[in-house]
Amino acid sequence: MTAIGGGTVRDLLLDRHPIFWIARPEFLLVCLAATALTLLYVRLRIPPFRALFVADALGLAFFTVGGVQIAEQSGLSGLLAILMGLITGVVGGVARDVLLAEIPLILRRGQLYASAAIVGAAVYLLLERAGLPRDPAALAGMATIALVRFAAILWRLELPVLTVEDQDYEAADSRPSS
Amino acid sequence: MTAIGGGTVRDLLLDRHPIFWIARPEFLLVCLAATALTLLYVRLRIPPFRALFVADALGLAFFTVGGVQIAEQSGLSGLLAILMGLITGVVGGVARDVLLAEIPLILRRGQLYASAAIVGAAVYLLLERAGLPRDPAALAGMATIALVRFAAILWRLELPVLTVEDQDYEAADSRPSS
Amino acid sequence: MTAIGGGTVRDLLLDRHPIFWIARPEFLLVCLAATALTLLYVRLRIPPFRALFVADALGLAFFTVGGVQIAEQSGLSGLLAILMGLITGVVGGVARDVLLAEIPLILRRGQLYASAAIVGAAVYLLLERAGLPRDPAALAGMATIALVRFAAILWRLELPVLTVEDQDYEAADSRPSS
Repeated sequence: MTAIGGGTVRDLLLDRHPIFWIARPEFLLVCLAATALTLLYVRLRIPPFRALFVADALGLAFFTVGGVQIAEQSGLSGLLAILMGLITGVVGGVARDVLLAEIPLILRRGQLYASAAIVGAAVYLLLERAGLPRDPAALAGMATIALVRFAAILWRLELPVLTVEDQDYEAADSRPSS
Repeated sequence: MTAIGGGTVRDLLLDRHPIFWIARPEFLLVCLAATALTLLYVRLRIPPFRALFVADALGLAFFTVGGVQIAEQSGLSGLLAILMGLITGVVGGVARDVLLAEIPLILRRGQLYASAAIVGAAVYLLLERAGLPRDPAALAGMATIALVRFAAILWRLELPVLTVEDQDYEAADSRPSS
Repeated sequence: MTAIGGGTVRDLLLDRHPIFWIARPEFLLVCLAATALTLLYVRLRIPPFRALFVADALGLAFFTVGGVQIAEQSGLSGLLAILMGLITGVVGGVARDVLLAEIPLILRRGQLYASAAIVGAAVYLLLERAGLPRDPAALAGMATIALVRFAAILWRLELPVLTVEDQDYEAADSRPSS
């Protein structure tokens, strides 16, 4: 679900039918095989936690830029293409986190999660418009996304965050939802 | 997402393509601009908490009646048009609350949230069928929604609520999900 | 929402329009009537908790096999038909649990929830391919789903579950999301 969720929502929004994994069910087989192999592997040894974040960053990079390219095929312009890339890249992980009743990674501080996807998608589109061929532009976009994510995790980079005194809001919040 | 979520689901359900914000990306720019202005404003001073509820009630009123009108354009009858209005009005806020891992406002006691949308949508449809022109009927429907919400918050109105002794259910609930 | 959620997502994924409850709004009236009757009944007496699980198992059986049949009508092959049955059967309940901020039943241990749906859908498809007429094959598939669910609840059957020492993961988890 994490792997195909974003592309599914993108295809529904763009009215692209059949949905990519209905058109090519081998995607589902790859997901099932990867799941089975992971379950087997984890039974033998616990992978370093870091590996999950590397895999997640590469998935974000790949799905986001792929989503932008499919949006371009559907004739969408800059802002919409970036948004479709963002949706393709993050919706699967958001659905996973929501099902597990966790705050999605994308909403947590110090992750630069959506930021990485947006910046990488923009890098790809700008390089392409600057005349770079499609594949190197895509590779540069993907590298940008992965690097921003790695940097955010390693150095705990953060966007400036709005700080409101929690007390005020908690006091206020207790009123209308009581 | 709160602003465009409901209309997006409505367009998907009605098979209206392109989705409204793909057809008119300026909607997205308005959302981005409003978000930026809000972030700037909140940095300077904390808005009264009450302002959030007023904005939410106006959004609910506007989106619900707008959703009913679009359902009418698609040829839907009374009950379905009201349901589409409800979906348009509430899904964005529900998605926001789910992503923040909160119980959606619509499911909380003493909010009359869905009730306000349903009653206002019905008021609009009835006035229109009674021969009132479209715009005053829409205005009356929107006013109904906003007023019911304000009344619910100010006077803590509630629908009669089913009370089951919690103990019984908790005891029972611990069994099958253990 | 629990009743129509799964079929709605299935229809969207298969691009079947109008969505089944737009094509036949009497589905919505049945849901509303059942809700009203349930609210009235519960006001008089608390139903045995067990009744909820029987109703849920029958719904899972009915919706899953119905979803497989509609996928077949749309020309989908084995794996995709089973997946569409699973989606039809479980998405409504998942949405209900997510809105109530609970871990969905389908993700809890010792429920065999998705397993029941997958096995029952496969039984239906296999019997049909073996030459059995449609209706008895469907009945056998539905019976399989209900029986697996009953067995899981009564005897607390479980699939072998992956156990990772929680401590390791909690320690690791506190790092990147801090």
